Amino acid sequence: MASIFGRRIQVSVWGQSHSPAIGVTVDGLPAGEAVDTEELQAFLNRRAPGQADYATPRKEEDRPEFLSGLVGNITCGAPLTALIRNTNTKSQHYDNLRDVPRPGHGDYAIGRRFHGFQDVAGGGHTSGRLTAPICVAGGVCMQILARRGIQVRAHISSLGGVADTVPDYCSQTPLPAFAAGEFPVLSPEAGEKMHAAILEAKSRADSVGGVIECLATGVPAGLGSPMFDGVENRLAAALFGIPAVKGVEFGNGFAAAGLTGSENNDPFVVEDGQIRTAANRHGGILGGVTSGMPIVFRVAVKPTPSIGQPQRSVRLSTNEEEELVIHGRHDPCIVPRVVPVVEAVAAIVLLELLLEGEAV
Amino acid sequence: MASIFGRRIQVSVWGQSHSPAIGVTVDGLPAGEAVDTEELQAFLNRRAPGQADYATPRKEEDRPEFLSGLVGNITCGAPLTALIRNTNTKSQHYDNLRDVPRPGHGDYAIGRRFHGFQDVAGGGHTSGRLTAPICVAGGVCMQILARRGIQVRAHISSLGGVADTVPDYCSQTPLPAFAAGEFPVLSPEAGEKMHAAILEAKSRADSVGGVIECLATGVPAGLGSPMFDGVENRLAAALFGIPAVKGVEFGNGFAAAGLTGSENNDPFVVEDGQIRTAANRHGGILGGVTSGMPIVFRVAVKPTPSIGQPQRSVRLSTNEEEELVIHGRHDPCIVPRVVPVVEAVAAIVLLELLLEGEAV
Amino acid sequence: MASIFGRRIQVSVWGQSHSPAIGVTVDGLPAGEAVDTEELQAFLNRRAPGQADYATPRKEEDRPEFLSGLVGNITCGAPLTALIRNTNTKSQHYDNLRDVPRPGHGDYAIGRRFHGFQDVAGGGHTSGRLTAPICVAGGVCMQILARRGIQVRAHISSLGGVADTVPDYCSQTPLPAFAAGEFPVLSPEAGEKMHAAILEAKSRADSVGGVIECLATGVPAGLGSPMFDGVENRLAAALFGIPAVKGVEFGNGFAAAGLTGSENNDPFVVEDGQIRTAANRHGGILGGVTSGMPIVFRVAVKPTPSIGQPQRSVRLSTNEEEELVIHGRHDPCIVPRVVPVVEAVAAIVLLELLLEGEAV
Amino acid sequence: MASIFGRRIQVSVWGQSHSPAIGVTVDGLPAGEAVDTEELQAFLNRRAPGQADYATPRKEEDRPEFLSGLVGNITCGAPLTALIRNTNTKSQHYDNLRDVPRPGHGDYAIGRRFHGFQDVAGGGHTSGRLTAPICVAGGVCMQILARRGIQVRAHISSLGGVADTVPDYCSQTPLPAFAAGEFPVLSPEAGEKMHAAILEAKSRADSVGGVIECLATGVPAGLGSPMFDGVENRLAAALFGIPAVKGVEFGNGFAAAGLTGSENNDPFVVEDGQIRTAANRHGGILGGVTSGMPIVFRVAVKPTPSIGQPQRSVRLSTNEEEELVIHGRHDPCIVPRVVPVVEAVAAIVLLELLLEGEAV
Repeated sequence: MASIFGRRIQVSVWGQSHSPAIGVTVDGLPAGEAVDTEELQAFLNRRAPGQADYATPRKEEDRPEFLSGLVGNITCGAPLTALIRNTNTKSQHYDNLRDVPRPGHGDYAIGRRFHGFQDVAGGGHTSGRLTAPICVAGGVCMQILARRGIQVRAHISSLGGVADTVPDYCSQTPLPAFAAGEFPVLSPEAGEKMHAAILEAKSRADSVGGVIECLATGVPAGLGSPMFDGVENRLAAALFGIPAVKGVEFGNGFAAAGLTGSENNDPFVVEDGQIRTAANRHGGILGGVTSGMPIVFRVAVKPTPSIGQPQRSVRLSTNEEEELVIHGRHDPCIVPRVVPVVEAVAAIVLLELLLEGEAV
Repeated sequence: MASIFGRRIQVSVWGQSHSPAIGVTVDGLPAGEAVDTEELQAFLNRRAPGQADYATPRKEEDRPEFLSGLVGNITCGAPLTALIRNTNTKSQHYDNLRDVPRPGHGDYAIGRRFHGFQDVAGGGHTSGRLTAPICVAGGVCMQILARRGIQVRAHISSLGGVADTVPDYCSQTPLPAFAAGEFPVLSPEAGEKMHAAILEAKSRADSVGGVIECLATGVPAGLGSPMFDGVENRLAAALFGIPAVKGVEFGNGFAAAGLTGSENNDPFVVEDGQIRTAANRHGGILGGVTSGMPIVFRVAVKPTPSIGQPQRSVRLSTNEEEELVIHGRHDPCIVPRVVPVVEAVAAIVLLELLLEGEAV
Repeated sequence: MASIFGRRIQVSVWGQSHSPAIGVTVDGLPAGEAVDTEELQAFLNRRAPGQADYATPRKEEDRPEFLSGLVGNITCGAPLTALIRNTNTKSQHYDNLRDVPRPGHGDYAIGRRFHGFQDVAGGGHTSGRLTAPICVAGGVCMQILARRGIQVRAHISSLGGVADTVPDYCSQTPLPAFAAGEFPVLSPEAGEKMHAAILEAKSRADSVGGVIECLATGVPAGLGSPMFDGVENRLAAALFGIPAVKGVEFGNGFAAAGLTGSENNDPFVVEDGQIRTAANRHGGILGGVTSGMPIVFRVAVKPTPSIGQPQRSVRLSTNEEEELVIHGRHDPCIVPRVVPVVEAVAAIVLLELLLEGEAV
Repeated sequence: MASIFGRRIQVSVWGQSHSPAIGVTVDGLPAGEAVDTEELQAFLNRRAPGQADYATPRKEEDRPEFLSGLVGNITCGAPLTALIRNTNTKSQHYDNLRDVPRPGHGDYAIGRRFHGFQDVAGGGHTSGRLTAPICVAGGVCMQILARRGIQVRAHISSLGGVADTVPDYCSQTPLPAFAAGEFPVLSPEAGEKMHAAILEAKSRADSVGGVIECLATGVPAGLGSPMFDGVENRLAAALFGIPAVKGVEFGNGFAAAGLTGSENNDPFVVEDGQIRTAANRHGGILGGVTSGMPIVFRVAVKPTPSIGQPQRSVRLSTNEEEELVIHGRHDPCIVPRVVPVVEAVAAIVLLELLLEGEAV
């Protein structure tokens, strides 16, 4: 089950950083849905490496080839499979890591899991590169959602001690759609400061993390189910599949833990004849079920563990401590590139919930 | 799927706050495991209401009757079912809520989900009362884990602006096991201040939330899988099933987002011939897989939405705003009672991962 | 997963033949559906023992108590749980079987599965008694299906070398609804001969099997999915959960294997403006998906393995062969009592497919 | 879920008959297992078309390219993906079928399922061509099973009124391994008669079905679980995913329905100190769990619905009956080519059960 998630829609992600290809299969998409490949490519380009001074210089086109599931560009009900060839791999950079696990990476734990047979080149199956096929799946789902009035948009809400503008959590107007190469923040000033913080860390051969905030607008009330099948359960289960995510919170999230009920409860009101809440501290989800307000959540992205500074590690074959210097190409900050991945994952889950909801 | 979770072990929780009974079925437990019902009862008593000035005065014995799955007190491989009768229900208190949803509660969203047919008495299926059967399932799993050297223990790490002592995240010595009625904190002084904060909120007919931190010690390396089947994914998916949980983070969590890689990475070291990490900012999970260090996570619990103060709401039948005053019996703070529930949910997930791991 | 099946609707069956109670939880039923408990009881009575000279004399009322999931008699969206107390248990009859497995029973295999900890009394969790809670779940689903124009009805198509009348597989008129105590065949003459065959076997302390045929009428076209999620896959997966079922076939089934394509293909025709097939050798399922014709399938029920004649077995503790004589109360033929169980299982699966289909 | 099955091992099959490629992803294989690609190719060649006078003349190399999941030829724990390009497609042959469904095919039902958007070329996703990726997955599983002493082998047990030799169901010696191009029967004489029956049907532009019998030897006792997670449930659920399968039976199967308990029960005996059954009418499965005897099952394969004779159908766009003549390349009998597919599916399920069993 490691690399498959979902029920009504099942997304199977496969490939390793340096395997012949990576790809994704999406089973359960509705038939008759057009896939706009240009729009999809624009979305994928937001994640693609090699475009900015804060991203790995590894150049990959990330141009998916659709192998199945389409007739023309229309979904036909059969599983949709897209493949991206790996072309720009330099596996020799990773030889040293087979025996000396990188701090903060999965090398050691996954080595224990797979008895040393795991693919170490470029991070293998746990490489951030595998978020490319996730974005293919999510990009297709976003197009289907958009036709139903639902938009999923994210921004960097904080990075390097700099906070972005707080959006209006009650507005059904979506956040801006960022373009490839654009720094995904609401406030250009905040973006410049964040950018500077990244370059500063880069100059010290270090890295920085950040918090990504995502809003989904246009989501109808009544999706999800109480208890273990709630919208929060399912979004969280999928979001923790994004490498480096270490926390997920909805609405007020951890801040709610410090408030009183009278501060945190959202009063119900009538606006234009519609039932709304006066604020949206609940993040659009109450009792596990959508309330009709925008869904709001944040994910914590830890700083890229691959840094250029020497680090302490252990040589597994000798059980002796050893200084490790990581070579290879790495991002001093992956947060901007994770923004579309968060949107992609949320779109997959929300489309699934929407389709399930139509059957309730 | 609303109320079932798990794969290798499946836990099905059923019942409503005021239905004849509530209960749980656990399918997939190993055969041949003893259930110490006295120890289990002591665990359940930690969650039970009616014991402290910060909990609802509703008195329920929460004494489970095992209907199946045991021969003597030994698991026999068949599904284990336990039932708890609901005896102390006062449904008339909830009549007003059928048409006027409580702010911060699931009433409105769940009403949309179930087209108005949901059980509203006492919160129905989404009541905190349903955490009692979760604790039965988790309490049994904790006993099985303990025989395998794994302890799952939680404490309140912050409440009402008061922080508890930070535990040693690297120690394999478990946190203390709290007794029923004991305030679950490491620092008695912090506990007194938290208690005072609860009573202060209660005096204003208000409520407070808090953060619960949980450590699992003795967990072997190599459990879980990368990507969508990681330990974080599965713990989070289950933990968001606990009512009022709005955030989940692992290790440094959201704080990691503000650090640099050199600050957040945990160096590998050799201690007593064993590979360890020098710190445990990763919370015992790297690449979705256990590292052998204690698992550390925190959940944010929002303040109980049921408060005595008048609140703004809407009468659904007329679509008009209306002031709502909630009657019934409620906790000014559920956080202390949620502590064993967090342990229970974590125990279920960890036992499942352990059993899966034996088959890897 | 042993005792849970389904996805959109999840049915969890629990209990052992001699545990305090048996029961079932059904998660995912639509809210707002009335449960007619009298009609349900009439259905359960068809399966209940102690009514005929071909059934075990064990008397059980099989009167379910609904513990959750209903408000009044209307489903509320929460899991529906029903309990049946075990009252008439004579466990001492089974002491001999702990060490000497019964031929044709699961004793030996299940003992290996659960390392000897399985409940042996009355067959434990694998007893035919566990079909009572299945019938509770299925009986509720049948009522929901009936409101949507779908009827699921079965009869004994052959037993003891006697064949029942072959129904019109193309007719959307349901088979007759049998009453409790009635021998479930279309031809009374065939029924008398079958009954005689059972009594003849009983007189020799032997047992007989039979074939049950089930038709579902009113099923719309387009339910199910190709390949692994087809109607046949899902019906078969559930039907083999009925004890003693050793074969499942759809439409012409095994007979189709001996035909030519020109004999087995069903031509499409237009009748009253509707597309139909001229015959129904395909059993209402083509490519895994319903065609709109009645669903037709048969299950092979092996003869009850519990017979009064001495049989060869092995004493496990000594690894020596030993003659076994089974005591206890047994059916010389369970086939008539399995007929409503087949209907129940089919109803659960078809309701699930129908609800999924509404979301396609 | 349409095209994904399994739990511990998940197999996702994708592609259409005339899409750019077909393929399979297998998630959950143990790490460290060698894949012998030559042996795998030999297995795939048994299914490949274009080799015999009874198979479609369409020539496809069916040579899988492994895109992920291997390091060298060793599984690395990441999902294994294999792709087969579709090269020899003649889609124009299928234009007529878009509006006029073929009798016995899924065209009409699947059209209703996917609202007319399904891929009709070559049968789309429901084409027998999709059994090639199933064989890739199964062939890999067979190699892993063989290292653990388990062999899965099938033969044609009857075809065109001709029966093959009945194997010794108690023997742990596997059936012969057939080579590509070899007619898969135990008795060469029976094989010649079957072959003649196929050619006779072909000469009349007709087709024939058959029954395939499969034995799995070396399977340990105690795999599977009672009720809904039994070996029969899971094998059947997967086997009905093979196109044209209309029946599945275990051990004596439907014949058991006509026997008495004294005839059908298998006595337990001790042979060479081991517990065995004297006969194997139960097909190696009792109570849903393996008994340690060879697993024996049969599947009914209906005659290929694509025949050259004119057939009655309906033009959907006008709702008028119309004679249909099917062009394209078809097998007068697919049964010989389905034999390795049955082995493949059984191998996948048995490996999954074995891996689960190691964790019991």
